[in-house]
Amino acid sequence: MSVAADPLLTPLPLDRPVVERAARIPAGFVAAGTSARIKVSGRPDFALIVADGGPVPAAAVFTPNRFAAAPVRLSRANLQATGGNGVTAGLARAVICTSGSANAATGPVGDADQAAIGDALAAALGTSPTEILHLSTGIIGIRLPVDRVVDMIDRVTADGLAGTDEALFAAATALRTTDSTTKVASATVMAPGPDGAAIPVTVTGIAKGVGMIHPRMATMLSVVLTDAAADPATLRSLLRVAAARTWNQLSVDGDTSTNDTVFLLASGRAGASDAATDERTRVLLGAAIEAVARDLARQQAADGEGASTLITCQVSGAADDASARAITRAVISSSLVKAAVHGRDPNWGRIAGAAGNAVLAEAAVLEAGGLSTEDAAARAATPAAVDPALLRIAIAGHLVYDGRARGPVAVDKVAASDAMNNEEVLIRLDLGLGDGAGEAFGCDLTEEYVRENSEYTT
Amino acid sequence: MSVAADPLLTPLPLDRPVVERAARIPAGFVAAGTSARIKVSGRPDFALIVADGGPVPAAAVFTPNRFAAAPVRLSRANLQATGGNGVTAGLARAVICTSGSANAATGPVGDADQAAIGDALAAALGTSPTEILHLSTGIIGIRLPVDRVVDMIDRVTADGLAGTDEALFAAATALRTTDSTTKVASATVMAPGPDGAAIPVTVTGIAKGVGMIHPRMATMLSVVLTDAAADPATLRSLLRVAAARTWNQLSVDGDTSTNDTVFLLASGRAGASDAATDERTRVLLGAAIEAVARDLARQQAADGEGASTLITCQVSGAADDASARAITRAVISSSLVKAAVHGRDPNWGRIAGAAGNAVLAEAAVLEAGGLSTEDAAARAATPAAVDPALLRIAIAGHLVYDGRARGPVAVDKVAASDAMNNEEVLIRLDLGLGDGAGEAFGCDLTEEYVRENSEYTT
Repeated sequence: MSVAADPLLTPLPLDRPVVERAARIPAGFVAAGTSARIKVSGRPDFALIVADGGPVPAAAVFTPNRFAAAPVRLSRANLQATGGNGVTAGLARAVICTSGSANAATGPVGDADQAAIGDALAAALGTSPTEILHLSTGIIGIRLPVDRVVDMIDRVTADGLAGTDEALFAAATALRTTDSTTKVASATVMAPGPDGAAIPVTVTGIAKGVGMIHPRMATMLSVVLTDAAADPATLRSLLRVAAARTWNQLSVDGDTSTNDTVFLLASGRAGASDAATDERTRVLLGAAIEAVARDLARQQAADGEGASTLITCQVSGAADDASARAITRAVISSSLVKAAVHGRDPNWGRIAGAAGNAVLAEAAVLEAGGLSTEDAAARAATPAAVDPALLRIAIAGHLVYDGRARGPVAVDKVAASDAMNNEEVLIRLDLGLGDGAGEAFGCDLTEEYVRENSEYTT
Repeated sequence: MSVAADPLLTPLPLDRPVVERAARIPAGFVAAGTSARIKVSGRPDFALIVADGGPVPAAAVFTPNRFAAAPVRLSRANLQATGGNGVTAGLARAVICTSGSANAATGPVGDADQAAIGDALAAALGTSPTEILHLSTGIIGIRLPVDRVVDMIDRVTADGLAGTDEALFAAATALRTTDSTTKVASATVMAPGPDGAAIPVTVTGIAKGVGMIHPRMATMLSVVLTDAAADPATLRSLLRVAAARTWNQLSVDGDTSTNDTVFLLASGRAGASDAATDERTRVLLGAAIEAVARDLARQQAADGEGASTLITCQVSGAADDASARAITRAVISSSLVKAAVHGRDPNWGRIAGAAGNAVLAEAAVLEAGGLSTEDAAARAATPAAVDPALLRIAIAGHLVYDGRARGPVAVDKVAASDAMNNEEVLIRLDLGLGDGAGEAFGCDLTEEYVRENSEYTT
């Protein structure tokens, strides 16, 4: 076997369609990003995205945290109200995001504050408060300065919104807490039009990753916009699948925040066939959403608190995709693996140990990832299948463990360590069990992470 | 309400029976600890415990890691062979522990090495190899020096074993990798004798915690000995319940190792009633085993890699004990909570966030903790019940969050931070939902942890 031909030493071919790190605003949306002086620093902290032709189909994925913040609870209720039948996908006219205060653990007054913001925006847009979606990020346990937010709503809706890439980029910038970069990603696919012609459909996402707002939570927010046509149920299905394969495979420090939210809105302005009824459009749109989500997740992992290295773990040869995802998640979540990557240590023992502990939680994610409801519930707490005698592991293109050998294999540790001296380290596992594949994204554990999270007192 | 009377500000009353940190060897066992030169440093690395009157009932809890090391797989097979019917509880004559090489991920040659050691010890003791239990800890992926271990078996069985506390302490010391302390705990309870008289029954455990052996895994090993009389099935039941409440509630860095093992052996020499048939003895013995396991788990958490502070999280008012245990486990496992404790930051937002993410995995542990098999399987991946509007949180005796208040409550952060300046920090939650209670043990996350785990290359 030629070493170069061993697929274990190369990344999985998961980079299609091509994603551009640009804020290409899809037709049908206008946006703004500015400062409403929620942050004392005066940095941007107010983002607004509006569907300029009226309410559009929308879907969401929310944090499962029982301490879901006021904006999360209000958005969930609004989508259920516009969607009907208790489904969290309905119609939305606008997404408002405030940064600086998470409006989490603020009790009934926090709910009232968020509702007042929604009422003010609905009034300014001449729509129902149930058609407003809310995002918030920042310090837990302090109130939003409602007056300043409402004042900015009035000013921005009067003359601050624009249907330009610059305006969407400004909105993305206003999501940031202390992210070191503005996170945007865009993909365009050619979908069939009603008359058979190929029509470009754009999917663009903006996101924030982990911040250093004080006290810090590993918060993540994202808004994905498209000019494709789709009904709420189709959007919900496509978003859940994409999130299961991308954002659910992202870990910076294992803490799921009170505010994590992803919204997907579809204006239908591209003129392509409706994804709800056209199978080919649905597949293309799903691929574009997943590609955008994947790129944003990678940007978020790379910008993790204190991180210096993006860790990508990819598994092939798993019993199924759910097992592959569970194993990659276990590897990138292991503190010992994260610390080893930081030290450029090709420590396959820690990777094998983490893989051996992988468990398939949780049922909802498994279901979104392709298992039936019954299978997902039954398998949720099941260990993932790994056979030490079949497993092979490569780090940064170097084979470091081969379970098919009779005993320990010799590893060129110096060469492997040198290859790890990079902005991204790829950990590849092949399980030798089946056709399942999957990946997960994380970052190294650094002394800087500990310093950032222990040095200051709230 | 007087502040001093609020039970939220004090520890749960879980410290009975009294535990002494001494290696009181129970009647019926002899022990030794010495150096077999597995470690190049020459420090003790060979421990042997023998039931001097022949095989005794024994039970075990093993790591669920799919990369279970050779000693784990051999011990499991041996207990199944002597116990019959596939149950991992049977008879054991001796426990041998080597430190320095984990004999993990060593393939078929590792299995052969471990079997050779078992054969040599069985021959020396004139017993069957299936009556030998094995423990090993240390570097992954290197072979044991079988010749040196067998040589030491011959020398120690010839004249090195003694039924003294000093000999058992020496065995505990030989378990250590780079634990900074030797970990022993002992409890004595008065159990009914056959004629109604109260008979002292002793339970003594030795353990090792996380080490700095290179590459490091958060390995934990323990051997618990008692002079109580009990059959294998009773021992298995008592050990599973105790482990579910203590060791399963211990996390240093979330990585379960390839070698984690706890053995429980009962010589029956105290002369008390048999725990298999006498309910009162069974309850007393179970309480003593749990108290010893709890104290060892606390020693292990306090001595975690790079740790400067023992974190104990206790929950009262939970829907049930399983929920309480899940929530405490989530809190002490959170990197953000661990970093906040390191910084003496009374950061209740991170604690609430972690509690809101708690999930009840895993089924086997839930079952051992008291749920029926059916309930445990159904609930394994279920989020634990937490109502933010009822939750109250205290850190180091200071109330920091009260969900029953209308909005955020004022916290004396300086006083709370000062109270955290201690070797142990108690995080108390009351859920206001029911009578469930539980606790978990962890340690702070320090820059030293990251340094220790990233600085060296294998």
